[in-house]
Amino acid sequence: MKSTIAIGSYSESDGAGLAAEFDPVTVSGPAAMAGLDPQQRPAIRVAAFKGGGLFGGEEMDLLPELGLIANYGVGYDAIDIDAANARGVKVTNTPDVLNDDVADLAVALLLCLGREMMHAAEWAKSGKWKRHGEYPLNRKVSGGRAGIVGLGRIGREIANRLAAFKMDIHYYSRRQKETPGWTYHDNPITLAERVDYLIIALVGGRETENFVSGEVLEALGPKGLLVNISRGTTVEEEALLDALENGKLGGAALDVFLNEPAIDPRFYKLENVVVQPHQGSGTVETRRAMGELQRANMHAFLAGDDLITPVN
Amino acid sequence: MKSTIAIGSYSESDGAGLAAEFDPVTVSGPAAMAGLDPQQRPAIRVAAFKGGGLFGGEEMDLLPELGLIANYGVGYDAIDIDAANARGVKVTNTPDVLNDDVADLAVALLLCLGREMMHAAEWAKSGKWKRHGEYPLNRKVSGGRAGIVGLGRIGREIANRLAAFKMDIHYYSRRQKETPGWTYHDNPITLAERVDYLIIALVGGRETENFVSGEVLEALGPKGLLVNISRGTTVEEEALLDALENGKLGGAALDVFLNEPAIDPRFYKLENVVVQPHQGSGTVETRRAMGELQRANMHAFLAGDDLITPVN
Repeated sequence: MKSTIAIGSYSESDGAGLAAEFDPVTVSGPAAMAGLDPQQRPAIRVAAFKGGGLFGGEEMDLLPELGLIANYGVGYDAIDIDAANARGVKVTNTPDVLNDDVADLAVALLLCLGREMMHAAEWAKSGKWKRHGEYPLNRKVSGGRAGIVGLGRIGREIANRLAAFKMDIHYYSRRQKETPGWTYHDNPITLAERVDYLIIALVGGRETENFVSGEVLEALGPKGLLVNISRGTTVEEEALLDALENGKLGGAALDVFLNEPAIDPRFYKLENVVVQPHQGSGTVETRRAMGELQRANMHAFLAGDDLITPVN
Repeated sequence: MKSTIAIGSYSESDGAGLAAEFDPVTVSGPAAMAGLDPQQRPAIRVAAFKGGGLFGGEEMDLLPELGLIANYGVGYDAIDIDAANARGVKVTNTPDVLNDDVADLAVALLLCLGREMMHAAEWAKSGKWKRHGEYPLNRKVSGGRAGIVGLGRIGREIANRLAAFKMDIHYYSRRQKETPGWTYHDNPITLAERVDYLIIALVGGRETENFVSGEVLEALGPKGLLVNISRGTTVEEEALLDALENGKLGGAALDVFLNEPAIDPRFYKLENVVVQPHQGSGTVETRRAMGELQRANMHAFLAGDDLITPVN
C-alpha cells in the first residue's frame, strides 16, 4: 500500500523526484481525493501538496492516518491550518529558497512598468520607431521612494535590491524591524501616501485579505505604481481595477491575481498594467530547490526526524 | 542675427527651453545646414546638437565662427572630434545625469530576458495560462556571474545594482580600477568565458567598433545572455544575429543597434531577444536634466566662462 499522495500538477522533474523517492498515489487536486480507493486511503501518511484547490478539514478526513502535508511553495494559504491543527496534522512549506527569484521579479516588474518596456518594445517592433521617431519619454525609477508592505524574508530581499537603485526605503509591517535606516510606518495608508512605488510582499491567507484596500490605493495616487508578487487576495482587486481604469492609480505590475489563471479580463485591457502569469518562483533552479525541500520534509517525517521547515 | 543653431529633433520641452534662452536657428540634422542662408551662417557661434546625422568637418566649415558644439547626450560619437579640434571648436556632452536611467534599463533588460517576461506576459494574455497551465520554467538571475564591459560611470552604476542581486561581478576595462572586490579581466574573451551575463557599457565611436566580436559572443556561449545599452557599433551585429539564430548565444536584450531606428528586421523575429527603442535615458526627469546641462554649457561658452562638461 502506498503511504504518500501527490496532490496537484507537478513539473516533469518534480514529479519524477516524487515518483523515484516515494512512489505516491497521484491526484490533480484535493477534490479528486474523494475518488480514491477506500482501501488505499488509510495507508496514506504524507501528502505532497501543490495546489489544485483548497485542502480543508473535509479533505483531511478522507485520509485518517495523514500526519504531514508538505506544501510546495512558501505560501500555504490553500491549506486550512486550523483544520490541520485540530487533526494533529503537521504542515511544512518551502521558504527562503524562492526569495531571490520572487524579489527579482518584483524589481523587474517595477522597472518594466516604470520604463514602459512592454509598450516600448511594441513601439519598435510595430515600426513606430521608424515612422514616428523615439518612444515617448517615461519616468525615472532610480532614486524614487519605495514602500514595502510586509517586510518578511521576501520583502527584505526586495528592499535590499531597491536600495541599490538609490531608493528611499519605507515599509509597513506589524511591528518595527531592525533595518539599515529604512522608515517604518505602522499602517499602509500613511506608507502609501509617502511613496512613489508600493510593493506588496505580504503572506497570503485570511488575515491579509484585502489588506491593500481601495483607501491604500487612493493614498498611493494617480502617479503611484503598485507591484504585487504576494497573493491576489492581499489587494482589493475590484478597487484596484477601478482605480486603474479611472486614472486614480498610475499603474500596476502584477504576478498574482484572484482566480488564477482565469483572471479578470479587465487587466488585459489596461495600458498601465504589466501582467505576469504567477511565475515569481518559476525558475528551473528554484523549483528544483523547492521540490528537494518538500521531499526532504517528507523524508524527515517518515523517519521520525524533526521537520525542516514546519509551519504549525 | 541669430548666434545659435539647434540641430536635430528636440522634444517639446527641450525645444521650448532652447527657444526661450537662445532663439536658435533650427535644422533637422547636419545635412540640412547646407541650406542655411549664407548671410546667417557666419553669425552662428554655438550649435546645440542632438543627432540627425554625422557632424563632420564639412558641416563645421559651413559655420566659420562656430566655437562650441553642445551635444545632447553622453555619447558624442556622431561628432568628429578630430575635425573639431582642428578647427578650434569645443565640444561638450551631458554625462552623469543619465547614468541612473541607463543602468536601470540595463538591469531591467537582463531581468526581462532572463525571466522571459515578454513571453510570460503573452502566455497570460493569449489565454495559454488558462488553457495550458503555468508558464514554462525559466532561469534564476540573482546569484549569477555578471561581466561588465567598460567600467565607466554607467558601467559602475550597473555593477552596483547587480551586486545587490548577489551577483559575482567581473569586468573588463582598459586598466584595472578601484572596486569593492570585483574581478578584473584584461580582455573581453576571458571575461565572457567566465560569466553568465555580459553587459556592454562601452563608449561609442571608432575605437570600440565591433569590440564585442563574434569571438567574444562565442565565449559567452549558448547559455550566455548579452545586454547592450551602449551603442550598436560596439557589438559585431552580424555575428550577434548569427549566434542568436544558431543557438550559439543564449539570448540578447538590446537598447541599441546599427542603423537605428531602421534596425535589422532579423532582431524582431528572434524569440530569445528583447528589443528596446534606444530609450536608455528616455525619462522626463533625465531628459530635462540633459537639456539643462546642454544649455548651461552654451551659456557658459557665450559668457566666456569655463565649460561645465567639456569633451575636448
